Amino acid sequence: MKEILKLGFIGLGCRGMGMLKCVYSMFFDKDIQVLAVCDLYEDRAEDARDFIIEKTGITPLCTTDYHEVLAVADIDAVVVSTSWEAHIEVAIAAMKAGKYVGMEVGGAYTVDECWELVRTSEETGMHCMMMENCCYGQREMMVLNMERKGFLGEIVHCGGGYCHDLRSEIANGEFNRHYRLRNYLSRNCDNYPTHALGPIAKTIGINRGNQFVSVSSFSSVAKGLHQYFADDPEKYEKYLDAEVKQGDVITTIITCAGGQTIVLTLDTTTPRGYSRSYLVKGTKGMYMEDNDSLCVDGVNSDIHIYDWKPMWNNAKDYEEQFDHPIWREINGDDFKELHGGMDVLVIRAFIECAKRNIQPPIDVYDAAAWASISALSAESIRQGSVPVAAPDFTCGKWKNREEEPMHKYTLGTVVEDHEMSIL
Amino acid sequence: MKEILKLGFIGLGCRGMGMLKCVYSMFFDKDIQVLAVCDLYEDRAEDARDFIIEKTGITPLCTTDYHEVLAVADIDAVVVSTSWEAHIEVAIAAMKAGKYVGMEVGGAYTVDECWELVRTSEETGMHCMMMENCCYGQREMMVLNMERKGFLGEIVHCGGGYCHDLRSEIANGEFNRHYRLRNYLSRNCDNYPTHALGPIAKTIGINRGNQFVSVSSFSSVAKGLHQYFADDPEKYEKYLDAEVKQGDVITTIITCAGGQTIVLTLDTTTPRGYSRSYLVKGTKGMYMEDNDSLCVDGVNSDIHIYDWKPMWNNAKDYEEQFDHPIWREINGDDFKELHGGMDVLVIRAFIECAKRNIQPPIDVYDAAAWASISALSAESIRQGSVPVAAPDFTCGKWKNREEEPMHKYTLGTVVEDHEMSIL
Repeated sequence: MKEILKLGFIGLGCRGMGMLKCVYSMFFDKDIQVLAVCDLYEDRAEDARDFIIEKTGITPLCTTDYHEVLAVADIDAVVVSTSWEAHIEVAIAAMKAGKYVGMEVGGAYTVDECWELVRTSEETGMHCMMMENCCYGQREMMVLNMERKGFLGEIVHCGGGYCHDLRSEIANGEFNRHYRLRNYLSRNCDNYPTHALGPIAKTIGINRGNQFVSVSSFSSVAKGLHQYFADDPEKYEKYLDAEVKQGDVITTIITCAGGQTIVLTLDTTTPRGYSRSYLVKGTKGMYMEDNDSLCVDGVNSDIHIYDWKPMWNNAKDYEEQFDHPIWREINGDDFKELHGGMDVLVIRAFIECAKRNIQPPIDVYDAAAWASISALSAESIRQGSVPVAAPDFTCGKWKNREEEPMHKYTLGTVVEDHEMSIL
Repeated sequence: MKEILKLGFIGLGCRGMGMLKCVYSMFFDKDIQVLAVCDLYEDRAEDARDFIIEKTGITPLCTTDYHEVLAVADIDAVVVSTSWEAHIEVAIAAMKAGKYVGMEVGGAYTVDECWELVRTSEETGMHCMMMENCCYGQREMMVLNMERKGFLGEIVHCGGGYCHDLRSEIANGEFNRHYRLRNYLSRNCDNYPTHALGPIAKTIGINRGNQFVSVSSFSSVAKGLHQYFADDPEKYEKYLDAEVKQGDVITTIITCAGGQTIVLTLDTTTPRGYSRSYLVKGTKGMYMEDNDSLCVDGVNSDIHIYDWKPMWNNAKDYEEQFDHPIWREINGDDFKELHGGMDVLVIRAFIECAKRNIQPPIDVYDAAAWASISALSAESIRQGSVPVAAPDFTCGKWKNREEEPMHKYTLGTVVEDHEMSIL
């Protein structure tokens, strides 16, 4: 095991810079060094360089060409947080250069690039972890914990989404150099499926005894951004007649080998509060994020049937009973700027696995299966919302693959406790 | 206009008896008489007869054969609240007998019977109102009011469902003589779509400038009832090996001519609290039942984007501003046993329209379009969840049909106020 993990950061927009700051905060400055930073925009790369100098006194390589980062032999691992379009290309190049890859979340543009990602990992023997922070959310891990302990019975249905009023971010994409704008003008699909799908896939064992079977996707009209542009016609004059391809609400239904249905929602261009709308339904219990309620046979099922409202907001009352062990170790309030602790946990898992060069808990098969949903969603919509087949990126290995515990080595601690080791 | 509406009640299970009691409570005993009651189970019909004798001193016809009810020439209108399977058959026979029909909610078994319902109404000139009480819910009418006044902008997406833990009712169906059990053993579809779909259809103008285009339906595995039976093996010995056909969660996506998508959920055989999961999303605002929140541009959109929880339960704060005028006239707390007032409003609308023999606000085209979703859902599931075409029961008239106000003549008052007349 490496005592010090030597890192490169490729892509230093809002998310990349946030993750860079994360690795230098809290637990992370003892066993990592960032040797290189890279962004297509020179000023972003320089800001990252200056931040590292300020923190460590050491000047990292600073470049606009990611190949220069990959050429640094001392670098063990890279964090890829570029625009969506470049994630897989850079991840593939990094594995070919012998780097352990941490790839930020996002959807794929083609199924083919997902296959190439998988094959590159298999051929090079290098790992690629999708850094899906929401897999490490407190409620998501509580539900995982409850499922593994049997409190939810057999899972029959799940839901989730990326439900976030992004009108301002998208509409100002040119000014803030954000890739969403060009995607919304040119593409129609669930472009951001993994925040919801990752935790669902973990809970129902996708690629480990279960798999996605079919994907059907439905698009509403695209009117939200038009309305937003029209409400401030001077500011958005350029876009008043623009054709927005992206429907306001995309609903995607995934069927699974285990018989579960999954409903994903992308809802980003009309007014709303933020939610990942996480929903897990089993034969013995359910959790719903949109009112933060738990309803479990034998725990509180006597009170829920006719009036649900008294159960809203009750999940917090069960944290002591059901929280995942890893969430007993940290206090989300300490990490408000790190998405309440999820970022800390996901990057810690990445660092610990990269130091050991072992299979990460969210591996290349997960990355391919989850990211491919965007491409499959687009394909289904283009075909009139017929079901399209989900590829088996494991080529049959899904039946017998074993789970890597999500928390393995996180917080720098090897988990010996038996109860935790099965989670 | 008839001063006294003479009624027959066909079907006197839990719902029929409830509606009968409703017409004799509050406002309803001044302008109606019930001349006949009918149920396949003699004891149910007798209970209804005895209730009427107790209330009025008059003995109605009491029969197990609905044809005897239809043969009573003095009867102007009938309320059909039989098992699901018989709704349309009885409604058709009643229209042929010259009766104004109030048909309880439920899904159709075939598209063909929906066509027959429509054609019978057209040929006989008799009206058939679907008595969808949830169209008259306080929140549903608030949303309708907001939409008509433009606060929600253009509607792009809606959701809803029948989400109700019915395991006990279904599992004990033989004992309590309920039709759900036999349906769940023999059928797989969204068997109860209208509670959610009715208010959605009203809000987006289905059959009045808009129409359903396609229906796709997805079924999860059926494990909830098996688990429920297995948890009490002595009581449910007979069903331990029964094949339950009905999937635990059915997700149905309807696309509309206006570009809206509608997601319907049937979720009745696993633990949960009751919800119709009403969701309406427009370019300027949204409402969600599952946390009772309103989020509207220009009203409260400044606070919602990153933390939604402070907005949960805020809809009550906007009742004064946005409630439908009809809900300013009544207090839902006065009608707790009548589903909080919805039952009062729907049966009042039926009575007032029947007295005048005019088109009801929820007419035969609505009844056919909404009920047909069950048959189309079953068809889509049988075909592997492909989209199936939704029939146009209006044969082209949907484009130019005008809306009948939901509240017309309700509460016995002709609404003269201009603001109300456009709602």
